[in-house]
Amino acid sequence: MRWQKLPASPPAAPANIACIAKLRAITMTTTDLPWPSNTALRAHAKRHEQLQVSELLSADRGRPADFHCHAAGIDLDYSRQLLDVPAREALIALVAETDLASAREAMFEGASINHTEQRAVLHTLLRAQTPPSGLTTEFAEIQQCLQDQQAWVDAVNSGQHRGFEDQPMTDIVNIGIGGSDLGPRMVVQALTPYHQQLQVHFCANIDPADLDTTLSTLNPATTLFIICSKTFSTEETLQNAAAARRWLLAAAPDPSAVAQHFLAVSTNLDAVAEFGIPADNVLPLWNWVGGRYSLWSAVGWSIAFAIGNAGFKQLLAGAQAMDEHFRNTPAADNMPIIMSLLELWSVNYQGGSNQAVIPYDHHLGRLPAFLQQLSMESNGKRVTNDGTTVGYATAPVLWGEEGSNGQHSFHQLLHQGTLLCPVDFILPLTSHSDDKDRHRRLVAHCIAQGQALTQGRDLQASEDSLIQRGTPQDEAKVLAPHLVIPGNRSCSTLTCQQLTPHALGALIALYEHKTFCSGHLWQINAFDQWGVELGKELSANVSEAMQGGTSSGALDTAAQALLERWQQP
Amino acid sequence: MRWQKLPASPPAAPANIACIAKLRAITMTTTDLPWPSNTALRAHAKRHEQLQVSELLSADRGRPADFHCHAAGIDLDYSRQLLDVPAREALIALVAETDLASAREAMFEGASINHTEQRAVLHTLLRAQTPPSGLTTEFAEIQQCLQDQQAWVDAVNSGQHRGFEDQPMTDIVNIGIGGSDLGPRMVVQALTPYHQQLQVHFCANIDPADLDTTLSTLNPATTLFIICSKTFSTEETLQNAAAARRWLLAAAPDPSAVAQHFLAVSTNLDAVAEFGIPADNVLPLWNWVGGRYSLWSAVGWSIAFAIGNAGFKQLLAGAQAMDEHFRNTPAADNMPIIMSLLELWSVNYQGGSNQAVIPYDHHLGRLPAFLQQLSMESNGKRVTNDGTTVGYATAPVLWGEEGSNGQHSFHQLLHQGTLLCPVDFILPLTSHSDDKDRHRRLVAHCIAQGQALTQGRDLQASEDSLIQRGTPQDEAKVLAPHLVIPGNRSCSTLTCQQLTPHALGALIALYEHKTFCSGHLWQINAFDQWGVELGKELSANVSEAMQGGTSSGALDTAAQALLERWQQP
Repeated sequence: MRWQKLPASPPAAPANIACIAKLRAITMTTTDLPWPSNTALRAHAKRHEQLQVSELLSADRGRPADFHCHAAGIDLDYSRQLLDVPAREALIALVAETDLASAREAMFEGASINHTEQRAVLHTLLRAQTPPSGLTTEFAEIQQCLQDQQAWVDAVNSGQHRGFEDQPMTDIVNIGIGGSDLGPRMVVQALTPYHQQLQVHFCANIDPADLDTTLSTLNPATTLFIICSKTFSTEETLQNAAAARRWLLAAAPDPSAVAQHFLAVSTNLDAVAEFGIPADNVLPLWNWVGGRYSLWSAVGWSIAFAIGNAGFKQLLAGAQAMDEHFRNTPAADNMPIIMSLLELWSVNYQGGSNQAVIPYDHHLGRLPAFLQQLSMESNGKRVTNDGTTVGYATAPVLWGEEGSNGQHSFHQLLHQGTLLCPVDFILPLTSHSDDKDRHRRLVAHCIAQGQALTQGRDLQASEDSLIQRGTPQDEAKVLAPHLVIPGNRSCSTLTCQQLTPHALGALIALYEHKTFCSGHLWQINAFDQWGVELGKELSANVSEAMQGGTSSGALDTAAQALLERWQQP
Repeated sequence: MRWQKLPASPPAAPANIACIAKLRAITMTTTDLPWPSNTALRAHAKRHEQLQVSELLSADRGRPADFHCHAAGIDLDYSRQLLDVPAREALIALVAETDLASAREAMFEGASINHTEQRAVLHTLLRAQTPPSGLTTEFAEIQQCLQDQQAWVDAVNSGQHRGFEDQPMTDIVNIGIGGSDLGPRMVVQALTPYHQQLQVHFCANIDPADLDTTLSTLNPATTLFIICSKTFSTEETLQNAAAARRWLLAAAPDPSAVAQHFLAVSTNLDAVAEFGIPADNVLPLWNWVGGRYSLWSAVGWSIAFAIGNAGFKQLLAGAQAMDEHFRNTPAADNMPIIMSLLELWSVNYQGGSNQAVIPYDHHLGRLPAFLQQLSMESNGKRVTNDGTTVGYATAPVLWGEEGSNGQHSFHQLLHQGTLLCPVDFILPLTSHSDDKDRHRRLVAHCIAQGQALTQGRDLQASEDSLIQRGTPQDEAKVLAPHLVIPGNRSCSTLTCQQLTPHALGALIALYEHKTFCSGHLWQINAFDQWGVELGKELSANVSEAMQGGTSSGALDTAAQALLERWQQP
């Protein structure tokens, strides 16, 4: 091959893996997880270098039943994880060693576990069905908020609430970003089969293209906006809200239309009032609800508009069922705990740097983006609770796309790449569609991908496969190495009977609690997000410089160069 | 804090980084890249452990102009990469050492560089403006195909081509998966400001929810389907095509409507004819166009329907301009080569395991998913061209979401996580929207994120920041470590004046050629995808077992357990 002029054989060289490790130290120091079981886990990890998942499965036919949990309508199969029984025991020992049970109780009871912001973390209270002792005031406020939310949904759905031309609303536009967008957006899309008459849209990006595109098909007279911003000061949200108001008022006879067409979820009633939204149109938030855990609050208003009040209650009930499971189940059968231990096993003992989440459900297409925030914003941290720099890896990159689409894209790397990519497959077993045959094929693909990751294909099978399809023997010998799949790659499969509001609520709460457990095991605060401040501050400087301001001294030369490119005609 | 019962200080333990490295060896052996400059690059990498990008920038005010390339309307700023001039020189030396120039020529000239499938790789020919010598037949076929495509677009746009009720078409539905979906889907969304009257939709997933949702708002009498499948045997595509035909024929008076409402892109004319699509409705593909490089062929028909023939030509022209740049520019100024060398620098010398792509443009929301296929399917490989298992990491996980949304989500991990996440920011400098102010703010955010990644925030600045906002001194001392951002994290920024079809064509071709270069430097075949076969084969087994077939013996116990769960009522 003329184009290929490569040295015949690679020269001997020092192990590059060691070098990868050393260079990782740019962002990580090199001490271990501080738990007593760490030493045992290191030994187990070393031993696992010689283990094959396929052998674990064939040696123990009871493994799929053993490496399995059930909770709140969700089944977790983790029998394809490269993890044997003794290693699992050592992982589970971490739960007692770190006194996870006390931390969990502290969360449920409203202690200030978000200690860097001196806040409780009470998203579980938003779905509680009875008032826990000590939290009766908060519980009553939540119930009041839920009642007000329901009344609004009824008023809009029934056509009782009307717009400036006295027509009922047809479209809801949720304007929010981050936690005020990703959760409701994902849930509304996931529950498409439960949509009622209102069309619900989402706008997050400050790029004007986002709102422009959304509004281009809507009628101002029948569009209702929900502005979600705890402080009512989030730049993207406020800019989009102002643009939405301009759009409305370009069509409406007078500014009083704002009161008919805007709702808000916020604690800043003054700013909301100044915008033109009356107090009756506002639902509260509380500082004990973090943005990425807020879809259960009035931030989920858009969900209730889309699927109705009964559906929203089912969503809460599913999450509450998972809360009960998480709070009351021994570690060995506790689904969020097991998933968190699997995350530690991958990240801290197997060198895993990413986690793929692949839902085999078209409507769950935005689940990875939601989980990205939940996991990476919660646990993408580098200091422990006491402010010490961590000596170990914390949250991996979480990514994914809906299956089966990914099979025709990045699955090549899952099977034959050089990176460990543990996968969570998510699989509703029955479809809302009448086409049972296509859905059966989808399920078959999901099950098969798990087996392919485990089983792989060796050199002989690869050669046989080529010969079977007519490749001459000598060519098959040359080609076979390209077909080899090493296998032994870890994955889990989460199934539910059908993606109902209840099942989705349970699934989201599962990942919330998994995230909490990992934060606890890593000794980090999963509930703050100090890392996002600096970019906002610098953006104000850049913005000022763009407008001819004097703060351009704060820009480095690279920023200055981009600014000049932007200024060029 | 009652909830936190941690050991006072972590016990001493062996370096876990070394262990991470060892366990990575599950999928990687431990030799180095085989190129002569590897030794020098190792030394440079070691030296870079002590370097700070911010110091490189302040020491050399010319750095933003030096670490910069321009090509085909795109500017690449890579001055924020942790890379100094001598290390860059060592990287550039790889280009000669690996004779990348010959490999590049071999691709452009149509050599069988996809040697495991004995195919040429000629997506560049699809956008060539004059016939290269030796490829005049292929060039003529392409021109004919393009003419036929244009004629169809004209006929549908003008209303000359009509449906079974003699109405003009209003909606196009592209049915395809992988390369027959991700590219056209991304481009059509990216070029929203250029859309003409036809609404273009995409359906890929075999989950019936995908097609059901798409069709729920469409009128069979005015809907035109394009079935994209090279072999016309892709399971997902054929199943969806059959469902689309059933939907059409439920409304149409007789089966002849299929000829009015279905187009195909395929080489399998017999299967297409059997489906009911006449030969005049079919555009060809060639075995020298890989799926993930096919949007320039008739697979891009949907693009031409969306933005018109002139727009499609501009897309091709932009790609062609990047081809010219790639083919004729010395390595030091060659944008795809530089981006590929940066990828090697990250993956093989800095332990990078992922690459974030964050477009600051709402309409580019699907670019990461497209690039995921391009990069991970091309270079997610584990054997070299001669069939030897690689001793080094190949393609990283590519992921991302549109900015500024990510700032309220995963950017926390970019700034304060323990993982290296090099970022490509993509930034059109002007918007198609009239709202210049919101767009200016978007640009400011993008520029600021780059500076934040470089600059970080040290302990003193963190403490000062807290005191400034009124935190008492003793609290500020305790809290400050949580605000520290290490900085020194690499990113590049790609800008274009505006996201026109020409600019987008150039951008896509840039990543195509980058992918080619990385495959070459890693000595792997970037153009096959043998790793996706096994899952398909196993899926057929699972599917058979689901229907009571006898092949369930091929299922392992974990697959069997999931199958039984699916079978439960």
